[in-house]
Amino acid sequence: MGILVLLRHGQSVWNAENLFTGWVDVPLSELGEKEARRGGELMREAGLLPDVVHTSLLRRAISTANLALDVADRHWIPVRRDWRLNERHYGALQGKNKKQTQEAYGAEQFMLWRRSYAVPPPPIELGSEFSQDGDPRYADLGDSLPRTECLADVVARFLPYWESAVVPDLRAGRTVLIAAHGNSLRALVKHLDGISDDDIAELNIPTGIPLRYDLDGELRPTNPGGTYLDPDAAAAAITAVANQGR
Amino acid sequence: MGILVLLRHGQSVWNAENLFTGWVDVPLSELGEKEARRGGELMREAGLLPDVVHTSLLRRAISTANLALDVADRHWIPVRRDWRLNERHYGALQGKNKKQTQEAYGAEQFMLWRRSYAVPPPPIELGSEFSQDGDPRYADLGDSLPRTECLADVVARFLPYWESAVVPDLRAGRTVLIAAHGNSLRALVKHLDGISDDDIAELNIPTGIPLRYDLDGELRPTNPGGTYLDPDAAAAAITAVANQGR
Repeated sequence: MGILVLLRHGQSVWNAENLFTGWVDVPLSELGEKEARRGGELMREAGLLPDVVHTSLLRRAISTANLALDVADRHWIPVRRDWRLNERHYGALQGKNKKQTQEAYGAEQFMLWRRSYAVPPPPIELGSEFSQDGDPRYADLGDSLPRTECLADVVARFLPYWESAVVPDLRAGRTVLIAAHGNSLRALVKHLDGISDDDIAELNIPTGIPLRYDLDGELRPTNPGGTYLDPDAAAAAITAVANQGR
Repeated sequence: MGILVLLRHGQSVWNAENLFTGWVDVPLSELGEKEARRGGELMREAGLLPDVVHTSLLRRAISTANLALDVADRHWIPVRRDWRLNERHYGALQGKNKKQTQEAYGAEQFMLWRRSYAVPPPPIELGSEFSQDGDPRYADLGDSLPRTECLADVVARFLPYWESAVVPDLRAGRTVLIAAHGNSLRALVKHLDGISDDDIAELNIPTGIPLRYDLDGELRPTNPGGTYLDPDAAAAAITAVANQGR
């Protein structure tokens, strides 16, 4: 079977400003571009060379893939893009400051929106500044364009793409890179590692460090939890996030 | 019918050093990156927004497409890449200085290699520094990997891709961007505009300026010669190249 490599995009300009982003299509910051190139170096040094790449429709994941693959000398591989790999839609919170949101709604409601499996934020108003209605890249979605999502919604819309577009590449023996987002990758890891709805809240995937999964014939990881190409940096990043929450 | 937009990549680091490049995979120079972004601005300003992009397997065309589409806010469109869009293979001249080559072989032989329709340079030696044998992106080509090409060879290998991969997009009414090279685009323009084997020698396509073709139901241009999105800059660039040759 093929090898799966997950790469979460690095810092965007809105991460740097502490704003909820979701489907708003902001670019990487300079730090994020550096993280992407470092991800490419790690793949090159490990000899882990993708045969095909799948990205979301958002430029922070697309740029991450472009920069990493260029460094790894794999800029020429086939590309597939799909909205189903997008970040979770953050509903009415998109464009809002995280600190101000927490102050306005309280820590409990804030954490529920951020980390619960099944509670989405309030839906975004159509036609508002940070809504995606009218965006040509989502024209095919019509009325099913999300206005908010919880992680369960992301799992539900991600898995059909996984089955129809990614699994065939893996079954053909290809090394598949998925360049995507914190929550679309959490949805996939939840599926691969069989993580419960409760436990997924605790799982964080560091940015810019390729995470390798070796899958058996039934698409189960032979290395549960995956293997980070820079395990020390990954452990440090995961600890930092865990300490943030305290 | 759909609209076709041709975009020739800008300056590469080897253009800047006056070396024959061909299939050697050198990056854009800073000027080349600027040209690519300008190409994207021209498309955005003209409202000429590609629905799909086709590129060669060479990073100077891939980066040009990535940079231009990012500026035009079309970074998310489907991508197809194929070796048949590559630059002409320059044979044993790849990696050689143009001035020194002209001095060594004389102006007449030099111009024959550069501009004749049917005379290729000497073939490159397999296993030599600037040969592409062993490059995984061409593994499927096997023994038919080019070792040199004249423009007639480029026409012969480009047209099957045109028919099988680009024409279906156009027939579906899409706006198609092709980000490629001086000679692969000359091959296409020769076909579209019905230019003779002799006259194609005189045709130069400027870098970084999108060239629009509107095609009728039989894939003939309703605007023969195409329309540059910045006609003044295109005319100036074409005049400059013509004067160089004198």
